[in-house]
Amino acid sequence: MAVRNLRLTLGYDGSEYFGWQIQPNVPTIQGTLVDVLRRITGERIWLLGSSRTDAGVHALGQVANFKTRSPIPTENLGRALNNLLPPSIRVLAVEEAPLEFHARWHAQAKTYRYRILRAAVCSPFLWRTVYHYPYPLDDEVMAAAAPLLEGEHDFSSFGTWDPEEAGQSKVRTVYSSRLERLPELQELVYTVRGRAFLRHMVRKMVGTLIEVGKGRLEPDDIQRILEARDRSQSGPTVPPEGLCLVAVEYPAEISGVAVPAQRDADSV
Amino acid sequence: MAVRNLRLTLGYDGSEYFGWQIQPNVPTIQGTLVDVLRRITGERIWLLGSSRTDAGVHALGQVANFKTRSPIPTENLGRALNNLLPPSIRVLAVEEAPLEFHARWHAQAKTYRYRILRAAVCSPFLWRTVYHYPYPLDDEVMAAAAPLLEGEHDFSSFGTWDPEEAGQSKVRTVYSSRLERLPELQELVYTVRGRAFLRHMVRKMVGTLIEVGKGRLEPDDIQRILEARDRSQSGPTVPPEGLCLVAVEYPAEISGVAVPAQRDADSV
Repeated sequence: MAVRNLRLTLGYDGSEYFGWQIQPNVPTIQGTLVDVLRRITGERIWLLGSSRTDAGVHALGQVANFKTRSPIPTENLGRALNNLLPPSIRVLAVEEAPLEFHARWHAQAKTYRYRILRAAVCSPFLWRTVYHYPYPLDDEVMAAAAPLLEGEHDFSSFGTWDPEEAGQSKVRTVYSSRLERLPELQELVYTVRGRAFLRHMVRKMVGTLIEVGKGRLEPDDIQRILEARDRSQSGPTVPPEGLCLVAVEYPAEISGVAVPAQRDADSV
Repeated sequence: MAVRNLRLTLGYDGSEYFGWQIQPNVPTIQGTLVDVLRRITGERIWLLGSSRTDAGVHALGQVANFKTRSPIPTENLGRALNNLLPPSIRVLAVEEAPLEFHARWHAQAKTYRYRILRAAVCSPFLWRTVYHYPYPLDDEVMAAAAPLLEGEHDFSSFGTWDPEEAGQSKVRTVYSSRLERLPELQELVYTVRGRAFLRHMVRKMVGTLIEVGKGRLEPDDIQRILEARDRSQSGPTVPPEGLCLVAVEYPAEISGVAVPAQRDADSV
């Protein structure tokens, strides 16, 4: 049987996992998927994810790929995976991809969403998936500050120590950075779309916007923080439970999957 | 300090609890609340719930009451409880009630909601709170059959073995029984409001409506099943995760809390 390259679109509730990346003796998303893929295919599987989401971070559009000689039809594989995986990890799509497709290297844009719950009491059904922050915030000034993080910048001030990023450029391009106010849900939802992100970058961007909302920083400070290239200048890293990787985009010619038209509309 | 009777309105995700009722060596909602109330008041606490929700069943409007000599203001008690309780149990309100108020005996009506998710794949964020049923169903005939369960009937056919109900009347009054179709959420939502319910009654009513949706029963069979007074005649008991106790109503004169006007609109 010829080698196939299969692309998975994944959703997961990360609250009970130690992040995406496989590690010994703790449950991880990658480790759980690899175990189940090995059981189904009988092969040793290398599963490549587009993003190494941190412990507690969720996904609704994570993309991963792996090579296999198994002849199993994609639809049956999706069904078998969802039957064997825990309900906190769901395979949303299985597709044939070109042999050279690589979920990480070919990713063109990623969209993350961060949910801040403003209600006085956090619903017992939401605590795994929102950051509950019931204290005063000026959400209007936060919404005005969010787009100031757009563009190509050296994001060193929004990075953290990560051996995989050591010695590499910290320049990243953020296509859009917006904060929406959803009063009916008592939520603030921050959505950021960019080429790629440093480790903890989205959570430090949100932490910085919260400092703006508290009045401890002005929107004008954003430019100063970017220019400082100093991690101590940005706001704190907000907790992982509010963060969700909602979409990963690939060039149509490599993904084997048509890119939805509306995704292009909000690109810069 | 004089004795006070305090009324709690509670929300909980029941998926990790062995139901409301306190039991040795397993986590229960009542047991968790009593432990925390004892820590706060330093007293032995008897907590009375309006409903003994089963293992896995949720609540957004469970009501409970307890007596205390503690002088703690209601607002501080609510904050202290939410600080000490796990995030899966939330105190939504703490109110002073008349000394004779009893959460169970004075309940005038209860509203339960049951969510059936029709999507092919269950979101990793929903599996604790919906019944995932992706198989064919005629939801139009189910919606037509749901109101046939309204009225005062002997609901023996929708009961289960329960020592607390032994020898007692199985006549209950259902004020409203409706199935809503929410295509945008890919959900069927069954809402039932009644004076009181037998154990497993709501889940057997939903199981029976699903049999109607599958074409195994006709809407006309509902009357026949009620008249049979035989548990083997109704549909199966659907799983607990879809069920939520959303509201409990009390007569204004005993509850110490005004009954919202819109609740009267849908009463029979």
